Amino acid sequence: MPHQIVRIETRDARFALKPGEGSDAIHRNPQYAYAVTLLVADDGTTGTGFVLTLGAGNELVIGAIELLAEPLVGREIEELMAGFGAVQKELADHAQLRWLGPHKGVVQLALASITNACFDLWAKARGVPLWALLLDLEPEAVVALQDLSYLEDVLTPKQAVAMLRQGAGSRPARAGVLTQGYPGYDTSIGWFGYSDDRLVDNARAAVADGFHALKLKVGSSDPERDVRRATLLREAVGPDVYLMIDANQQWTVPQAIDHSLRLGEIDPYWIEEPTHPDDVLGHRRIAREIAPLRIATGEHVANRVAFKNLIEAGGLHFVQVDCTRVAGVSEFLAVALLAKQAGLPVAPHVGDMGQVHQHLMLFLTVALDNERIFLEHIPHLRQYFVYPAEIRDGRYLPPQEPGASAELRG
Amino acid sequence: MPHQIVRIETRDARFALKPGEGSDAIHRNPQYAYAVTLLVADDGTTGTGFVLTLGAGNELVIGAIELLAEPLVGREIEELMAGFGAVQKELADHAQLRWLGPHKGVVQLALASITNACFDLWAKARGVPLWALLLDLEPEAVVALQDLSYLEDVLTPKQAVAMLRQGAGSRPARAGVLTQGYPGYDTSIGWFGYSDDRLVDNARAAVADGFHALKLKVGSSDPERDVRRATLLREAVGPDVYLMIDANQQWTVPQAIDHSLRLGEIDPYWIEEPTHPDDVLGHRRIAREIAPLRIATGEHVANRVAFKNLIEAGGLHFVQVDCTRVAGVSEFLAVALLAKQAGLPVAPHVGDMGQVHQHLMLFLTVALDNERIFLEHIPHLRQYFVYPAEIRDGRYLPPQEPGASAELRG
Repeated sequence: MPHQIVRIETRDARFALKPGEGSDAIHRNPQYAYAVTLLVADDGTTGTGFVLTLGAGNELVIGAIELLAEPLVGREIEELMAGFGAVQKELADHAQLRWLGPHKGVVQLALASITNACFDLWAKARGVPLWALLLDLEPEAVVALQDLSYLEDVLTPKQAVAMLRQGAGSRPARAGVLTQGYPGYDTSIGWFGYSDDRLVDNARAAVADGFHALKLKVGSSDPERDVRRATLLREAVGPDVYLMIDANQQWTVPQAIDHSLRLGEIDPYWIEEPTHPDDVLGHRRIAREIAPLRIATGEHVANRVAFKNLIEAGGLHFVQVDCTRVAGVSEFLAVALLAKQAGLPVAPHVGDMGQVHQHLMLFLTVALDNERIFLEHIPHLRQYFVYPAEIRDGRYLPPQEPGASAELRG
Repeated sequence: MPHQIVRIETRDARFALKPGEGSDAIHRNPQYAYAVTLLVADDGTTGTGFVLTLGAGNELVIGAIELLAEPLVGREIEELMAGFGAVQKELADHAQLRWLGPHKGVVQLALASITNACFDLWAKARGVPLWALLLDLEPEAVVALQDLSYLEDVLTPKQAVAMLRQGAGSRPARAGVLTQGYPGYDTSIGWFGYSDDRLVDNARAAVADGFHALKLKVGSSDPERDVRRATLLREAVGPDVYLMIDANQQWTVPQAIDHSLRLGEIDPYWIEEPTHPDDVLGHRRIAREIAPLRIATGEHVANRVAFKNLIEAGGLHFVQVDCTRVAGVSEFLAVALLAKQAGLPVAPHVGDMGQVHQHLMLFLTVALDNERIFLEHIPHLRQYFVYPAEIRDGRYLPPQEPGASAELRG
C-alpha cells in the first residue's frame, strides 16, 4: 500500500529536567528540547523525527525544518527511500539555505529531523521496526540511502557495497544480539552538577541494575574536583566496570593532555570531547600525547566530512556519531562505514536518548560487524515516548513495534 | 561621552539581484540578504552590524540575534570593547544556544552580526573610521578584543601582543596605503550564469577601470565549459592581469586535483574553494597535488579553530576569512594573527561587499604588515549603503566617515 506524504507538521517539544540532570562543564543549566518533524501520510500514518537542542533556539531549528522539508509533500515514501541519498543531497544543497551551513548548525539539525522522520514513516509503512527493515535491505539499497559526496577520496559507493556484502556471510554468528539486546552504559549517574555522594550512590545503583559501564562529567575549573570524583567513582564500582570521562569540550589542547594523563590513573575506557570538535589536528596531538588512553568524540561533529578528517588524522578511537547531529539516520550510516573502514567502533552519543540508535546498533552489529561495545543510556525523557527503550540487566531490549521508536506522547 | 546601549533592533534586509548576479556553481539563484543588528545608544547613535545570507533563512539568523544579543542592553560601549574578547566568549558560550553550533552555522552568523554592530557603534562613539580606531589602539587592547580560546597550542595572547608590537616600528613605511587606498579585485565580472560574451566584455571593462585582478566562477558539470571560459578570459585580458578561479566547493577532492591542474594552463593566481570547507586534510591533499598552484578558502570557514587546522595542515595559501562568517571583526583579527604567524596573506571574502573589510585591510596592512594583495569588490549592493565603498582606479579609497561603513539606507 503506497504512503504518500500529504502534510508536514512540526512540534517544538520542551521538557523540564530535575536540578543537575543533563549538566556538564559547558552546559551548566540545560533544558532538553526536541525539534520535531511529523510527516503525515495519506492514510494517517505519521513519521516522527527529531533532534535534540538544549532549549533556547529550538524554534530556529523548527523554522529551518519548515523551509527545508517542503519538497517532500506529495512524495511516496517507498519511492523516496529508494534513492534517499540523492534526495538528501538535494535538500542539503538548497540554493539559498546551504549558505547557512553547509552541513552544520541549525540547517543540518533540521535536515536530521526531517531525515529521521522519513525513516520512521518508512518502517511504519512496512509495519516493521527500523532495525528489521535495514537488515532486510540489499547492500546496494543501504548505500543508496546515503549521500556519499565529498567522501570520494576514501569511500566510493562501490567500496561501501563491498563492505556490507563482506559481512553478509557471518550474520548468523552475530544475530544473537537481536534477541539478547545491545549493552547499554549509563551517563545519568555522573552529571556535572551532582554532589559526590549522589554520584557514588547513583553509580552503585547502576551497577546493581546490571550496567557494566558508566560515564563521569569532568572539566571543572578546579581539576582536583575532577580527580577526586573520578577516584571516588572508581573506588565505588571496583576495577571491572568501564568508566568513561567526558570533558564536553571544556579543555584547551594543552589542558586536555595534562588532565587526561592525570585522570588516566583511574583507568578510563575513553576520554570524551577533550576539546573543540572542529580541532582535527588538536585531537591528533592529544591522541599522540595521551596514548594508550583513547579518545571518543562526535556529539558535536556535524557531518561525514568532519568525521572523515578526524578519522584520517587519528584523532579519535570511538566514533560517537549521533543521528540527531549529523543529517539523520542516513548520514549516520555513512559515518559508520567510514568507521568500519578504519577499524573503529561506533558508540553513538544519544541526543535521542537511545530511541533510534538502539535500532541502528542492532543493524551495525549484525550487518557490519561493528565491534560490540555499548550504547549510551539516558533515562530522563522516558515518560515522553510512546515506546520508551526497555533496558533490562543493562541491555537495550530490541524494539518490536513498527517504526524507529521516535513517536512522542501527545 | 558615554554611550550606553539602550535598545537592540534587528532588520531583515533583502535585496533583489539582476539575473546571473551572484551566481556560482553551488548557488545558482541567490538573493542577497543581510541579517542586521542595530545597537541603539542612549544619545541615538546606532551601531550597525550585519551578515550575508542568500535569502531563505535570513529570518533564522535574525531570530538568533535576538536571543544572543540581549545581554548587551545596558552596557556602555567603551567598557564593553575594553574586554570584548571575554564578552564574545560569554555570548558564544550561552548555556543553551552553544549546542546549535558551536561557533558555526546560524548562531555564529548571529554573533558576527552583533559583534560587527559593537565595532561600528564604538567607532561612531569615538567619531572616527574603524580603521583609524584600530590603528590607534595599543597591541594589548587589540588582543583584548579577541577570544583566543582553543588556540592555546599555537597562539597565546602574549605571542599575539608581540606580533603586533613587532610591526609597530615599521608602520610609517606602510602608511601610504591610508591615502592611496587598498587595491581591489573584481568578482562581478565572472558570475557562473553569465554568457561567454558578457564575461569577456565585463573583464575588458574592469581592466579599463583600473582593476588588475579578476575572478572567474567555475565548477560546471561540463569541465570543458570551465576551461573554455578561463581561456577566453586569459586571452581577453592578457598575461599581466591576475586571474582567480573559484569552484565554490563544487568539486570532490579527486575532481579538484584534476580540474585545477587543467585550469593551471591559464596561470591562475589561486584556486578558490576547491572542495568542502570542512575537509582539512582534503585541502592538504589538493595543495600537495596541484603545487605550485595555490589554494584560497574561507568564505565558509566558520571560526578560528577551523582556520587553525587548515593553516597547520598546509591546506590553504590565501586566508579568505570573512567578518560576516566568523564571529565578526573580533574573530577576523584573531584569524589574521594566525595567518601572519604562518606567513600567509589575508585576502577576505566580502559578505559585506567590502564595506567593513576595507577598514580591516588598512589596519592589517599598517599594523601587521599583511602582505598587500587585493580586496574583493562586488558592486551589486552599493545603492543600499549610506556610505558605499569608493573605488577609484581599482583601489578602495580609505573611508573617512565615523564607524565601520556598515550603515544601510532606510
